[in-house]
Amino acid sequence: MGEEISNKQVILNNYVKTSVKESDMSLRTSKIQIKIPSGCDDAILVKNLYLSIDPFILGLMKNQELDLPSFTLDSRSCLMNTYLWIWRVESTGFVSSNFKTGELVWGFTGWEEYSLIKDPDQLFKVQDKDLPLSYYTGILELVVRDYAEVMHACHDSLCWVFQVLLSQKGSTASGAVGQLVGQFAKIAGCYVVGSAGNKEKSAFALMKVDLLKNKFGFDEAFNYKEEHDYNAALKRYFLDGIDIYFDNVGGKMLEAVLNNMRLNGRVALCGMISQYNSLEQPEGVHNLINAIVKWVRMEGFFTSDQYHLYPKFLEVVVLLIKEEKITYVEDIAEGIESAPEALFGLYSGRNVGKLLVVVARE
Amino acid sequence: MGEEISNKQVILNNYVKTSVKESDMSLRTSKIQIKIPSGCDDAILVKNLYLSIDPFILGLMKNQELDLPSFTLDSRSCLMNTYLWIWRVESTGFVSSNFKTGELVWGFTGWEEYSLIKDPDQLFKVQDKDLPLSYYTGILELVVRDYAEVMHACHDSLCWVFQVLLSQKGSTASGAVGQLVGQFAKIAGCYVVGSAGNKEKSAFALMKVDLLKNKFGFDEAFNYKEEHDYNAALKRYFLDGIDIYFDNVGGKMLEAVLNNMRLNGRVALCGMISQYNSLEQPEGVHNLINAIVKWVRMEGFFTSDQYHLYPKFLEVVVLLIKEEKITYVEDIAEGIESAPEALFGLYSGRNVGKLLVVVARE
Repeated sequence: MGEEISNKQVILNNYVKTSVKESDMSLRTSKIQIKIPSGCDDAILVKNLYLSIDPFILGLMKNQELDLPSFTLDSRSCLMNTYLWIWRVESTGFVSSNFKTGELVWGFTGWEEYSLIKDPDQLFKVQDKDLPLSYYTGILELVVRDYAEVMHACHDSLCWVFQVLLSQKGSTASGAVGQLVGQFAKIAGCYVVGSAGNKEKSAFALMKVDLLKNKFGFDEAFNYKEEHDYNAALKRYFLDGIDIYFDNVGGKMLEAVLNNMRLNGRVALCGMISQYNSLEQPEGVHNLINAIVKWVRMEGFFTSDQYHLYPKFLEVVVLLIKEEKITYVEDIAEGIESAPEALFGLYSGRNVGKLLVVVARE
Repeated sequence: MGEEISNKQVILNNYVKTSVKESDMSLRTSKIQIKIPSGCDDAILVKNLYLSIDPFILGLMKNQELDLPSFTLDSRSCLMNTYLWIWRVESTGFVSSNFKTGELVWGFTGWEEYSLIKDPDQLFKVQDKDLPLSYYTGILELVVRDYAEVMHACHDSLCWVFQVLLSQKGSTASGAVGQLVGQFAKIAGCYVVGSAGNKEKSAFALMKVDLLKNKFGFDEAFNYKEEHDYNAALKRYFLDGIDIYFDNVGGKMLEAVLNNMRLNGRVALCGMISQYNSLEQPEGVHNLINAIVKWVRMEGFFTSDQYHLYPKFLEVVVLLIKEEKITYVEDIAEGIESAPEALFGLYSGRNVGKLLVVVARE
């Protein structure tokens, strides 16, 4: 038997019905052996460093009838999973050719300090050591497909782009994906409008809007909390209509965008944060007829279907970061204990930029 | 002044709120000069032969806030418009190089016996004189884009296709577009399931389902009136999910299909007949999240955005008809007077096949 060490874990106590509460999760401390168990010859054991806090997690906490892997509430697997930065601690002979002790990799694992990864083929190695490791929870990972989508859209036909990533409860164009998609679109020559806000019409909301224009370089930005009529707001910024909508919001904003879409417009369906929290059931989109009469293409994606583009993406983005042509803001919480509060804050619009938790610093 | 003749017209009396009634329309007889008026040098005067009765007409009768040309209720333009077979009677010198008296053309005009067409550039000439003229209201016109869409979809990735064209009120896979898209998909090697039915669970509904399987050659067909749970019905026919959905229905069937879609599925948004009639406001689609997690592409189209494909389409389809590789059913009413009843019947699911009105026989 190998050495046993303490392993703090975040546990899902019950499935979430509408809004997530901090009390839906709890912290426990278990033990883990620093040795690969017998019969797990392909596994690796990792020390988790950075935990990414993403809007889609709530979908997994709700046990909805989607083709997504939900958390299951048994003694072990109720452990919450997400993207983490990981540091491999131990391995067996079989995988020694792929992973070495001490090597830095990233992928999908649990909300805990140490994890046994039984299918390490899904992991990626850290390529560029010059940049902060935490970037692999966001700019160097999350937006692979978003980047591909925006670039594709822009090269095709673009003259206007609308990028809005807000929710009635807060996640915004100033969030993890929003800040980057907008900047990529600007680089591609688009006119970009972002929307931000949070629960209250606050100085914090104003700061976010300011951030979009003055730090990320969007052409326009607005605080959706000051807009009673999304249709009117969109008409103000898009006199001739919208060509591209990068949607992380869904619901009523998607409806308003469809009303303002131009002929042959495109909607990249990336997320629907307005629909994840606080709703008994999702709102309906009542005006899909617009997609017919305006020949609109709506296409959904997850980052994970585009990993073949990753090497090319990394090459371009690392250069953009190093040349300071792109601005990337992180919102960092310390310690695995702070993860439930951080997740709660995400749905309340408290974060600015990419939200993550430092579990350990290498 | 030229000779004046009688011109029967169908008039829209008032905008339709929910369901269309025959009393929303009325017949009037006006006069028209068999001579192009001065100042209309590019115009042509046509005698209308065949009138196409299509589901989308209700959208124009409702004066909705869509980027569609609604009917306007003034003395002249409340005349209802739709696709018609037209026979040119008179023209001025300017257009004589393009159109000759007696020539057969098709395009968009009014629900009346004679029409003055001020922008004849939008008209198409009849290419193939061997086939019934009425075919140009349907198989040789309407489905240009549908054909292109199915062929494109099939060549890309297909192993299953789902084609359903029903409504809670009746229009079905046995309608104008449905019968053809399904057959095109069969020719392209797809597994095709169609759905049909009408208001009552009747022998007529059974006949339609039988038609789909035994006349049009679909692999399976079902009567949606016997299905209380669309999800369960789809799961029965698509054990492994649906790759392609050709949607002329929208609403609850679109929701059920999204629940049963496979990864990288496609939805061709062609029409939403379930949403045109009987509803105070359109139903919402509440599960677009499926489009994200399954990377589904949904794309809207009108036939009119694909007319550049028309020559190629015509070549293929005329051959398919002549070689009897495709079956085409028409449902024909006689006389412009019967048009309001025919339109009402369309939303009640009374038609079998392509619905049209013979205004005059050449």
